[in-house]
Amino acid sequence: MTKKCYGAVELGGTKFTTLIAKDTRTILKKKVFPTLNPKDSLQDIVAFFKDEIPDCETKLEAIGVGSFGPLDLNPDSKTFGFITSTPKQGWEFFNIKGEIEKALDVNVFLETDVNAAAVGEFYLYPVNRIRNLAYITIGTGIGAGIITNGKLIHGLVHPEFGHISIPHDIRKDPFRGVCPYHRDCFEGLASGPAMTARWNLSPDDLPVNHMGWELEGEYIAHALANLIYTVSPEIIILGGDVMHHRHLFPIIHKKARALLNKYIKSRSLEENISEYIVPPRLKDDSGILGALSMAVYETESRD
Amino acid sequence: MTKKCYGAVELGGTKFTTLIAKDTRTILKKKVFPTLNPKDSLQDIVAFFKDEIPDCETKLEAIGVGSFGPLDLNPDSKTFGFITSTPKQGWEFFNIKGEIEKALDVNVFLETDVNAAAVGEFYLYPVNRIRNLAYITIGTGIGAGIITNGKLIHGLVHPEFGHISIPHDIRKDPFRGVCPYHRDCFEGLASGPAMTARWNLSPDDLPVNHMGWELEGEYIAHALANLIYTVSPEIIILGGDVMHHRHLFPIIHKKARALLNKYIKSRSLEENISEYIVPPRLKDDSGILGALSMAVYETESRD
Repeated sequence: MTKKCYGAVELGGTKFTTLIAKDTRTILKKKVFPTLNPKDSLQDIVAFFKDEIPDCETKLEAIGVGSFGPLDLNPDSKTFGFITSTPKQGWEFFNIKGEIEKALDVNVFLETDVNAAAVGEFYLYPVNRIRNLAYITIGTGIGAGIITNGKLIHGLVHPEFGHISIPHDIRKDPFRGVCPYHRDCFEGLASGPAMTARWNLSPDDLPVNHMGWELEGEYIAHALANLIYTVSPEIIILGGDVMHHRHLFPIIHKKARALLNKYIKSRSLEENISEYIVPPRLKDDSGILGALSMAVYETESRD
Repeated sequence: MTKKCYGAVELGGTKFTTLIAKDTRTILKKKVFPTLNPKDSLQDIVAFFKDEIPDCETKLEAIGVGSFGPLDLNPDSKTFGFITSTPKQGWEFFNIKGEIEKALDVNVFLETDVNAAAVGEFYLYPVNRIRNLAYITIGTGIGAGIITNGKLIHGLVHPEFGHISIPHDIRKDPFRGVCPYHRDCFEGLASGPAMTARWNLSPDDLPVNHMGWELEGEYIAHALANLIYTVSPEIIILGGDVMHHRHLFPIIHKKARALLNKYIKSRSLEENISEYIVPPRLKDDSGILGALSMAVYETESRD
């Protein structure tokens, strides 16, 4: 039996997860660490992967990393593979890809956290059934990983879907928004911190029947309608802390259907909308399993 | 010398263009017809391509068609290659791809008019320089052809970018919008007919210093910012009748830059925005040359 093994890291602002696996389904070892400064966290990562496992060769095939950003993912850039202008102290311009590669002599495939989560959900589907997918996280911030024709969109920089503008009726919702750049963009109106600032209650403390949930569902529905009109995904996955409140889903389904107003003729958007806008099937593991998928499939495609 | 030749059709609501070429640069013959009913127009198309040309083999390699829509572009569908629920009388559920293929015994590659225009502009660039491009037409309607990672986005149906919602400040612009589905979506606020209805003057009659142009530029800038945040194109091309008014470009550049508010760090969006949001380099031929490119490149990729 092959002793090939793969690694994965999901690097978040407060904690990070590492794992070693034989393939995308056979996890051998998994651990969660607090995110410290880059030096100490790198040491934790290296120690985790250097620890020998009987079923694995000493050297991993590759490590997939999904990381908080912003990241430089342009292969032609001098800072390719770096975390760039993050407000997270100590991590500015840290060469996350290069440092792990150097310490472990292994190929590292790096993506943003939300892109890794999109990849994780994407590989759940049999190839050729779903080729166009969007994963949106709604939590402290809002971001999207978008796959079209089976590939992640990168483009000029990378998508910053949280910052699209959506209709904001100031008479109905006089809250001005929390985005330091745009004030009342999607993230400024609908992120967790926006909800907390608007109602003086965090989403976790907001009663299920509070009108704040209707408003939240409306903003999300507006953003999804724009996404559907722009890239026409075949499925939309909504993750992140705010979406742990599952009663939001039926509100979003109802409002998205009303907004699209049957303009786009597709059963997915009419009777089947609850199978079209869905929670992550991988629950909170989309990111780490996506990072693992990147390591496995990118390695295979280069063999 | 090879006698291989390719055909192209750009089918519009009031007129259509046909051409025969040896490659994307060597046009042998080109003609414009009025768009009649499908039977008569099909006859015009067939007669044009059946007419023998000394430099060509009797049978064309392929014909690329860019057509008004909506089109069914799902290869698994029973009505694949049809114009579907168009309001244009007589053309509902006309099998444009199948009828041309049958009459001329030739492969037809079909795309929406705006997707064909995106393809036309895309092939102007050396491969691997630009892989992500958006072509937006602003005229009677508004639509976009979007290319990511070198491929057109199709997805669940196809993009309907004209129908995204954008901020509409009713105190500043009390005009309610003309979209029969969404009222004040992008198309409802910024298409040619929306301008005409708002000001009682068509865009062609609206003086250059009329405040309507500032407002038009603002709506377009909002839509482009959303597009940039969602798919991060490397270049955005604006075509269509409204965009023939070239004084709109500097207004859009200024407003798009202000809206993005330097959130996305890229020289393209800062000092170089006038090379980032541009008129079609193929002028009014993006669609027909895109249809030709489809015939040439799709044939090559299948050989």
